[in-house]
Amino acid sequence: MDLDFYKLTMGQLIFLMYAHIPVTFSFINRSIDVQLPKHINVDELREQLEHARTLRINPDELGWLVSSTSISGKRILQDPYLKFLSTLRLPEFNLEVDDDRRLHLQFYGPWSTVVYWETIALSIINEMWCQSQMKDMSRFERDLILTEGKMRLGKKIALLNQPQCEGLTFSDFGTRRRFSGDWQSYVVDAMANELTQAKFRGTSNVRLAMDHHLRPIGTSAHELPMIMSGIMHKNDDSIRASNQQVLTDWWNLYGHELSIFLPDTYGTKFFFDNLTHEQVVNWRGFRHDSGDAIEFGEKVISFYQSHDVDPREKIVVFSDGLDIEKIIKFYGHFKGRIDTDNGWGTTLTNDMGLRTLSLVVKATEACGHGLVKLSDNLAKATGNPTDVERFKKIFGHTVTTRTECKV
Amino acid sequence: MDLDFYKLTMGQLIFLMYAHIPVTFSFINRSIDVQLPKHINVDELREQLEHARTLRINPDELGWLVSSTSISGKRILQDPYLKFLSTLRLPEFNLEVDDDRRLHLQFYGPWSTVVYWETIALSIINEMWCQSQMKDMSRFERDLILTEGKMRLGKKIALLNQPQCEGLTFSDFGTRRRFSGDWQSYVVDAMANELTQAKFRGTSNVRLAMDHHLRPIGTSAHELPMIMSGIMHKNDDSIRASNQQVLTDWWNLYGHELSIFLPDTYGTKFFFDNLTHEQVVNWRGFRHDSGDAIEFGEKVISFYQSHDVDPREKIVVFSDGLDIEKIIKFYGHFKGRIDTDNGWGTTLTNDMGLRTLSLVVKATEACGHGLVKLSDNLAKATGNPTDVERFKKIFGHTVTTRTECKV
Repeated sequence: MDLDFYKLTMGQLIFLMYAHIPVTFSFINRSIDVQLPKHINVDELREQLEHARTLRINPDELGWLVSSTSISGKRILQDPYLKFLSTLRLPEFNLEVDDDRRLHLQFYGPWSTVVYWETIALSIINEMWCQSQMKDMSRFERDLILTEGKMRLGKKIALLNQPQCEGLTFSDFGTRRRFSGDWQSYVVDAMANELTQAKFRGTSNVRLAMDHHLRPIGTSAHELPMIMSGIMHKNDDSIRASNQQVLTDWWNLYGHELSIFLPDTYGTKFFFDNLTHEQVVNWRGFRHDSGDAIEFGEKVISFYQSHDVDPREKIVVFSDGLDIEKIIKFYGHFKGRIDTDNGWGTTLTNDMGLRTLSLVVKATEACGHGLVKLSDNLAKATGNPTDVERFKKIFGHTVTTRTECKV
Repeated sequence: MDLDFYKLTMGQLIFLMYAHIPVTFSFINRSIDVQLPKHINVDELREQLEHARTLRINPDELGWLVSSTSISGKRILQDPYLKFLSTLRLPEFNLEVDDDRRLHLQFYGPWSTVVYWETIALSIINEMWCQSQMKDMSRFERDLILTEGKMRLGKKIALLNQPQCEGLTFSDFGTRRRFSGDWQSYVVDAMANELTQAKFRGTSNVRLAMDHHLRPIGTSAHELPMIMSGIMHKNDDSIRASNQQVLTDWWNLYGHELSIFLPDTYGTKFFFDNLTHEQVVNWRGFRHDSGDAIEFGEKVISFYQSHDVDPREKIVVFSDGLDIEKIIKFYGHFKGRIDTDNGWGTTLTNDMGLRTLSLVVKATEACGHGLVKLSDNLAKATGNPTDVERFKKIFGHTVTTRTECKV
């Protein structure tokens, strides 16, 4: 359960409808100047990943999932899925180091089991990277790293308790990027105790939500439309239609409560143009994950207005490389015009004065087809060049912005 | 054993020569704007003091004292004294709060048992004062206090590791002023691990020296000449002579190794004038505990030169309200001209961003006579006004400087 909640909501959809789709997820280090095998022990990484495969969800956790994931009296996670979860074992992986000292790590198998690897693998690798930066430090110097983290955390809390942040809300989305599991727990505990429940809404980490009596928080990820393109790979039209298929499946399963669009998989332009008026009216809002956040929010407001929808009844969830300054700035900018929320990652759970890397685990293959993510920032694009070019054409993607991912 | 080492070296002299002298030690809060009973629970203080009376030195500690307090192969603490220590119980105390909400705390009984109360009582009261300042804080806010302490400690260590501090030495003298016992242990551990043994010489805290495999460090205190004035209270001449009696006793018992003069009990002027040339030649140096430190050091250098003694073979130990800036400044100022060392207290073990108080436990009565300390700073003077005036005359004390004691 030491993973992100969206893995469970997506996991249930996958379990119910696409359980046996063969997929491959790949680890990608976007910080290309860092050759990870020079810093972390690959044998130890293998051991940790193998250890993760021995773990199972336990009955206490299952019981908590039943009781804690009800919204408006309706259970999000149903018994058949929880029964499946209770026997789940993480599937195989392939770990290699190439001649250029790059880490190659793939997870493969049926989508219904591979889906859970993403945040677990990223937590492990990020923690090992942080440890590697401290390996020559004395015990006191290591403690000073935590001290620096606590000072920075204290400053964030002080800023968030300012009057200008009245009404601001955020959640911890930092599981995958954390300095350590203990540190994430410390941060979540401090936020939960020092801020109101209205301001700190909860954490994406299921186990921490359970331990700290918080709401597990999450939306959905690019893997849904990406893999759907593999499932519906017959021709350009079916690939284009796969995006709508995800929205239909998601809405049918979860309805209003979890209806946050993630529009940037193939660029937001296509996504906005492709939505039905009914979807615009029904869904709660949008998650921002690439491109300029203020521009995006303004575009969402105009978009709602063009559909005669009052943006003040809708929401934008920011989740792209947030920091305290951006969170406060975005809140001030959009206050009273559209609801906002924040999924705060790296600079919440790994702000210790150490270098952080931009590491992701992305779906790269489904049903034998290469998968593509374009996003509104080409630095976040994934897929092989031929597929990328094809998908750009299919989705009318014309974005040329490339902003380095720092986190 | 959670007390200052000088209590044991003084304790042995007292045990051997003045065991049954009836004395009273009194707690004095020099931070007169703070009415302690408003902040600390006096019943809890009583309980803690009573708890200290239940404690005994244990066989492990005794064994360590035998093995660790040998210098040049000669044991400092001898068997008869250690046998006495093994059965020692702290004597009674009298604790009251007056109408003005001031704390009155006296320790009384034979000098050989009362002597140990000083640093134990001060540690307890200082820790309670620090706790009182945090009583309305959340768990996270309390942790931020420790965080602030660690940041400040890290900065001190970084400064002490600069090239300009090559050759500088100091010891922890902060038991009585500490934020907490755990914190003092943390500080001592960090200093011991982050600095060379030559730079961080050890700690005055006997138990911490044992736990951290360090040298217990200490000189002697004003109580020796002060109480000696009570013992030799016959007339002005005998009182004047009591100062020399202490030097004779101390030298006879400990010789060269512990021969650091503490010259300011009745003002350094009298002390310097009263020393024999032989003492000046034989004793290792002086401890500074009041008045301007640079002036004092210069005076010591001139004094040695006037006795045809090379000051570079002598030492000044600074111990009066030190901080990292003073320590570095004094070291730079006297480098190459006279050896220096530092007994670092409050700002080493209680530098957390909380207010610290100037609290002392001083000998106030011996053999029924009121005792006096004059020092080179009238803010540090103790004794009733009539006695103070008499002692000023006896010792030719003309200092009029009064500098507030911050620590």
